[in-house]
Amino acid sequence: MAKPIRKRSKSEGLPPGTLIHTGERKIETAKITLIDYDKAEYHEREVENIEGCFPFNDKSFVTWININGVHDAEMIEKMGEHLKLHPLLLEDIMDTHQRPKMEDHGDYIFIVLKMLYHNVKKDELEIEQVSLILGSNYVISFQEREGDVFNPIRERIRKGKGKIRKMGASYLAYALMDAIIDHYFVILEGTGDKIEETEEKLIVNPMPETLQRIHNLKREMIFLRKSVWPLREVISGLERTESTLIEESIGIYLRDVYDHTIQVIDTIESFRDMISGMLDIYLSSISNKMNEVMKVLTIIATIFIPLTFIAGIYGMNFYIPELELRWGYFAVLFVMAVVGVIMLFYFRKKKWL
Amino acid sequence: MAKPIRKRSKSEGLPPGTLIHTGERKIETAKITLIDYDKAEYHEREVENIEGCFPFNDKSFVTWININGVHDAEMIEKMGEHLKLHPLLLEDIMDTHQRPKMEDHGDYIFIVLKMLYHNVKKDELEIEQVSLILGSNYVISFQEREGDVFNPIRERIRKGKGKIRKMGASYLAYALMDAIIDHYFVILEGTGDKIEETEEKLIVNPMPETLQRIHNLKREMIFLRKSVWPLREVISGLERTESTLIEESIGIYLRDVYDHTIQVIDTIESFRDMISGMLDIYLSSISNKMNEVMKVLTIIATIFIPLTFIAGIYGMNFYIPELELRWGYFAVLFVMAVVGVIMLFYFRKKKWL
Amino acid sequence: MAKPIRKRSKSEGLPPGTLIHTGERKIETAKITLIDYDKAEYHEREVENIEGCFPFNDKSFVTWININGVHDAEMIEKMGEHLKLHPLLLEDIMDTHQRPKMEDHGDYIFIVLKMLYHNVKKDELEIEQVSLILGSNYVISFQEREGDVFNPIRERIRKGKGKIRKMGASYLAYALMDAIIDHYFVILEGTGDKIEETEEKLIVNPMPETLQRIHNLKREMIFLRKSVWPLREVISGLERTESTLIEESIGIYLRDVYDHTIQVIDTIESFRDMISGMLDIYLSSISNKMNEVMKVLTIIATIFIPLTFIAGIYGMNFYIPELELRWGYFAVLFVMAVVGVIMLFYFRKKKWL
Amino acid sequence: MAKPIRKRSKSEGLPPGTLIHTGERKIETAKITLIDYDKAEYHEREVENIEGCFPFNDKSFVTWININGVHDAEMIEKMGEHLKLHPLLLEDIMDTHQRPKMEDHGDYIFIVLKMLYHNVKKDELEIEQVSLILGSNYVISFQEREGDVFNPIRERIRKGKGKIRKMGASYLAYALMDAIIDHYFVILEGTGDKIEETEEKLIVNPMPETLQRIHNLKREMIFLRKSVWPLREVISGLERTESTLIEESIGIYLRDVYDHTIQVIDTIESFRDMISGMLDIYLSSISNKMNEVMKVLTIIATIFIPLTFIAGIYGMNFYIPELELRWGYFAVLFVMAVVGVIMLFYFRKKKWL
Amino acid sequence: MAKPIRKRSKSEGLPPGTLIHTGERKIETAKITLIDYDKAEYHEREVENIEGCFPFNDKSFVTWININGVHDAEMIEKMGEHLKLHPLLLEDIMDTHQRPKMEDHGDYIFIVLKMLYHNVKKDELEIEQVSLILGSNYVISFQEREGDVFNPIRERIRKGKGKIRKMGASYLAYALMDAIIDHYFVILEGTGDKIEETEEKLIVNPMPETLQRIHNLKREMIFLRKSVWPLREVISGLERTESTLIEESIGIYLRDVYDHTIQVIDTIESFRDMISGMLDIYLSSISNKMNEVMKVLTIIATIFIPLTFIAGIYGMNFYIPELELRWGYFAVLFVMAVVGVIMLFYFRKKKWL
Repeated sequence: MAKPIRKRSKSEGLPPGTLIHTGERKIETAKITLIDYDKAEYHEREVENIEGCFPFNDKSFVTWININGVHDAEMIEKMGEHLKLHPLLLEDIMDTHQRPKMEDHGDYIFIVLKMLYHNVKKDELEIEQVSLILGSNYVISFQEREGDVFNPIRERIRKGKGKIRKMGASYLAYALMDAIIDHYFVILEGTGDKIEETEEKLIVNPMPETLQRIHNLKREMIFLRKSVWPLREVISGLERTESTLIEESIGIYLRDVYDHTIQVIDTIESFRDMISGMLDIYLSSISNKMNEVMKVLTIIATIFIPLTFIAGIYGMNFYIPELELRWGYFAVLFVMAVVGVIMLFYFRKKKWL
Repeated sequence: MAKPIRKRSKSEGLPPGTLIHTGERKIETAKITLIDYDKAEYHEREVENIEGCFPFNDKSFVTWININGVHDAEMIEKMGEHLKLHPLLLEDIMDTHQRPKMEDHGDYIFIVLKMLYHNVKKDELEIEQVSLILGSNYVISFQEREGDVFNPIRERIRKGKGKIRKMGASYLAYALMDAIIDHYFVILEGTGDKIEETEEKLIVNPMPETLQRIHNLKREMIFLRKSVWPLREVISGLERTESTLIEESIGIYLRDVYDHTIQVIDTIESFRDMISGMLDIYLSSISNKMNEVMKVLTIIATIFIPLTFIAGIYGMNFYIPELELRWGYFAVLFVMAVVGVIMLFYFRKKKWL
Repeated sequence: MAKPIRKRSKSEGLPPGTLIHTGERKIETAKITLIDYDKAEYHEREVENIEGCFPFNDKSFVTWININGVHDAEMIEKMGEHLKLHPLLLEDIMDTHQRPKMEDHGDYIFIVLKMLYHNVKKDELEIEQVSLILGSNYVISFQEREGDVFNPIRERIRKGKGKIRKMGASYLAYALMDAIIDHYFVILEGTGDKIEETEEKLIVNPMPETLQRIHNLKREMIFLRKSVWPLREVISGLERTESTLIEESIGIYLRDVYDHTIQVIDTIESFRDMISGMLDIYLSSISNKMNEVMKVLTIIATIFIPLTFIAGIYGMNFYIPELELRWGYFAVLFVMAVVGVIMLFYFRKKKWL
Repeated sequence: MAKPIRKRSKSEGLPPGTLIHTGERKIETAKITLIDYDKAEYHEREVENIEGCFPFNDKSFVTWININGVHDAEMIEKMGEHLKLHPLLLEDIMDTHQRPKMEDHGDYIFIVLKMLYHNVKKDELEIEQVSLILGSNYVISFQEREGDVFNPIRERIRKGKGKIRKMGASYLAYALMDAIIDHYFVILEGTGDKIEETEEKLIVNPMPETLQRIHNLKREMIFLRKSVWPLREVISGLERTESTLIEESIGIYLRDVYDHTIQVIDTIESFRDMISGMLDIYLSSISNKMNEVMKVLTIIATIFIPLTFIAGIYGMNFYIPELELRWGYFAVLFVMAVVGVIMLFYFRKKKWL
Repeated sequence: MAKPIRKRSKSEGLPPGTLIHTGERKIETAKITLIDYDKAEYHEREVENIEGCFPFNDKSFVTWININGVHDAEMIEKMGEHLKLHPLLLEDIMDTHQRPKMEDHGDYIFIVLKMLYHNVKKDELEIEQVSLILGSNYVISFQEREGDVFNPIRERIRKGKGKIRKMGASYLAYALMDAIIDHYFVILEGTGDKIEETEEKLIVNPMPETLQRIHNLKREMIFLRKSVWPLREVISGLERTESTLIEESIGIYLRDVYDHTIQVIDTIESFRDMISGMLDIYLSSISNKMNEVMKVLTIIATIFIPLTFIAGIYGMNFYIPELELRWGYFAVLFVMAVVGVIMLFYFRKKKWL
């Protein structure tokens, strides 16, 4: 799991607006793709450096610039100059430990989201920061590395599927956010499966490893929660904004995304409840097992300790009258058997057997 | 218990408004029933396909279309076209993992609720999504399968019992919601019985199975909570809406439903408190039992270990003066008895006996 | 303790406004008492059936009808007709599982409260629903059975004590509510005594029965809480209402009742905290006891097991040189004593003795 | 610790406004002191009975009447008549189980606070109710008994120290409240010391007495919390009030008191967190100790039980070939030593030694 | 860790506005540095006594006075006179146990913050109060001792790096706050490292020392929380203030600081969750270990106790027919081996081995 705040200190003492990349560098060189489209036409190309993107096509087109890799301060600075973006915003794009947020800067809206990946190799959740800048006729998206979550949207633009080609830039921004939040469901499904699996193991045979798993699930939830909770505010902020950048017809789509976010949050909260229930079960099953161990010990000890004592008595080297009886041995064995049986009855009565 | 989010991922990457059924298919073919009524007249018929429902009877009639089965995308699309419904709404009808919600679309109000069933076979709660569309003179209700919760309403319409025939479509919508929420009380009664039963078992003889039961009850509560909490907002949203679709005289009825919802929520919260109290009792009764087991072991061991030691001493093959005494054996037995009695007094003093 | 929701299901599927008594029938036949008074005069009589109450005395009088027993649907329906009450309200009077609430119906205000009794026989709290209808010059109160909480108010009216005869109907309603909430303090005093008593037992000698008591107290608190929390809203609703039925001079009295309600809530919350603290103490005292038991076992076993081993060695039938020593026995006894004393020192060092 | 609600029931059934003293009588006869001052002059005298206080000096003076002892209903009634106070307010002064509150009655403001004392003898916190009535040019303060918290204020008035002589009645009221709240810090310091002391004991040698201490601290916190939380509302109420009784320049002083209140609340919450952390430590240190006891038992038993078994074998009266070996005894001793050493290695590996 | 409220009582009973230093004296004599700058010029000098600072340079300059050491009441009083500051404010500067807060006094804004240091020697967090007074063209900052957190800002002013020289006093105040809050990230990084380290130890080998560490981390979090939570209000208060002292262009910078504060709070809450999870793990790993110890004891005892009993039987001095068999000894050994093996199989079945 990514460190929650590691390397934040890199930028301590620097003037605000200084561009410093605070995350791990997840990609070698930044890759810039530019798509512009209107109802009729559609162009897509990869550009070498950011200057190649400007100026945009004329107003009737929607321009989508997608940048994979946010470690290149120079490129981001140039882009900032071209579009007259606030330096703090550029800093936020490069500082990949931002909290999800939405800022209305008048000419453009700045949105920070978290994308989650399931790293199959390490069996861990990984987090990536996605920043969006929504202008009047453009959207710029920043990812930390190449991902495939936006591919279906590219496909829809290419093929003119759905409404996307007929709508403006704010619909594109919505579509990108929707893709990110939809992906949370995939992540949650995976977590749900793990919870179920762990729960079954818990019932069949609780082990210290199971506890470790529960603990990991719990941390995953802390992690998820931190990424998703602020989203609620972000999206309801977009819904309520009076900015003209958000077309009115987008409202209902944002409401839909908002509903999904709430659903994700609900599910996370339910999972947290389930996981804390699992911990209770684990602890009480450990208690149960210890209880069972204790019972076995007690039964064995309680039966044989008195019998061994009886044997000990007749092992003493005193003059013992009983020893002279021919059938004494058998009498003693009988007495021992009786004592043992009484003990067994006692345990049965106590429901230990 | 139904999986909380399973299969949500089916629709990942598709454009919003794509109709995908995300639940299990609970019925073979959708069944459509159409009832229309005014104060004087009443018609009821089953229709083969959705086109058979349109156009509705003239304005003075209230039309209620009930559709059992939401997996038929084509049918739902056609209906959407006829009534000019928003595509996202149609998507929500088919995606049976929605959160309860209320959306005012101007010409119609869209309501999503959760109906709960007690599946007697599996002794589990099952959830079903019910969507309502309330228009100016019609109500369309979608259920995942045939249920009997709406039957009393049909009966009331048929027989003209109560006010239902004298009132408009919003009263019908209210009656449907009321029926669903009233059914929660039946579910809660069942849960209440289970809690009481489990509590008695807990006191008489706590077993690992009891723990499992407590855990299941806890999960049921998580489940119920998730379905019921959002209802509060839904109904107070309906109360506060300025839509003319909700007749003013309905206000007091909605208030009544709202009160019931709060009562359901209160009861769920009380149950949660009770269940968590049961867990505490279970854990401490396990501790108590272990304590008791330990005491038995300790008493037996503490009495007999020293006695066995004494016997051991006189079993040594040394030259031991006491062995030559004729009454030595009896003296030793007496000493042992005294030691035993002292031990017993000690335990009595400690209140272990 | 009364079942929280039992029998609610009785009314499932019936049209709203159907009068169904959902509680246990706590009284044989309903008893109706009518008191009307103004500053100068005062009349009190018992009436056979509800029609005997109408019409009321002229406007200058305040009329108080108290009805004990709410199972008689016919009577309540007649009363509803006379006073033109809403059918849902009549349903609520008979459904004794309502949540405390306040409804302003314009011509009258409807208030539902919970009265608490301590059933001395069963040593349990019992709950009773009290409904009040406050009209312009009348108050109608419904109790489930005869109680004595309202007697002091009757007495005050009879004797013209306090302000009650000089004030209008809303003051009477206030006086009734005040009487109910004042009675909560008596209940809480009883609970406080039980908590203290249980706490002392807990310190002197914790037993499984003590746990049961703690658990019962906890449930009582859940119960109380559910009855009292909504009161806050009810009374602040009355304070804020713009209804002319509430005379302005009543405001300060309602504020006083409100303060009492908050005080009751505060006390319940403190009790909850105390009870949960008691559970912690109980659990750790069980742990402590087990620890002590373990120590005794360990001390005895740890001292005698090695000694018994030594005795066992010299009980072997080998040729053992030591056995030939005359003073061997005493030497061994000495060695054993030394081992025992060392063990005792060890335990003292460990603070086990 | 004072009983939280004891004796509240005394007043059940009495008409509101009846003056009943509900606390313990902490002083024999009420003592009344009257101070009046303006910038130039200053008078102080003790008066025998309340009538001696009226009428007040003319408007330019501030009159402060301090009354120690609130059990004298007659006196309080007379005062109420003179100043035209609401009977409910007089009731509240005598009922010493009020919640802190602020009531604006137009001509005067009524404030109820809780003063805390550390009773050194019983090592307990004690609570006292202080009521203030703030009029246009007078403040009346009621204490349950003589205290020394207000002495520094008297001193400041006498000596004309600070601003007090230059300001009006509302500044005096502020000064009294400030004195009370400042005293909370002294109480909290004491509690903080106790927490630290207990924490050290906890680490050095946890004992059941430590648990009792933790529990007492916890109860003290419940107690403090109940007295302090409502203060926040009281003081922010005074800040926000539009009453002309509060001079505008007082605002900043009230803000200061408010900040102190928040600081007290913060500290209480931190203490609660610390105390609950101590409970966790206590419980786990008990577990640790039991674990250690178990280990000693297990090591001793596990080493000697097998050895005793070997000795037992050669103590049997069978014909055993080994017995005939001259060096058999030494061989067996050697075997036993080897077994013992292996066991010790095993325990070392397990980190039990 | 600094005592949370220690020495607060020093000032009890004194009139408000009395200047009393409540903290430890962390520096010998106060050190005053004065910097004033505009776009073009820049002066920096150390002044002996506070009078040396007045009057300020003319309006176009921004003056920053930094004072290290707040124990010198005389100096602070003089400064208060020069700038006409409210006496309560001066008191707050010297009382170093203030809660972070923001007060708008019209002519100046008063801000109290907490700076955190990691004391490497004691491996403890230390807290220091920083007060800021923001006037129209000056900022005065008070620190308890010399620190290096503000050095980068000095450097930026000297070198004219960033915007600082081009902006007014409110930007300087922002820069100081930003420096303090940025430093929290460094502290949190340290804590994060400790948490991780402790977590690893917890998994490898949980020890009572680990518990102590967890407990210390928990206290650190209580401590941090108390310092950081109120910051949120402080900064949003600055954002929302209508004071003209805050230039409009500062808004976005304050928003940025606000975001950082929320991030710090989020991280603290996540850490709290993690730490409480660690406690659970610790407790259950202790349980696990005890369980394991119990198992070893039980296995050994359960195998050898019955065998020892058999040996005991044949050690009795009775006439026992079996003893006469030549191969009796071997038969008994065989029986014992069988019993042992059965036991082992039983334990394997129980999964104890």
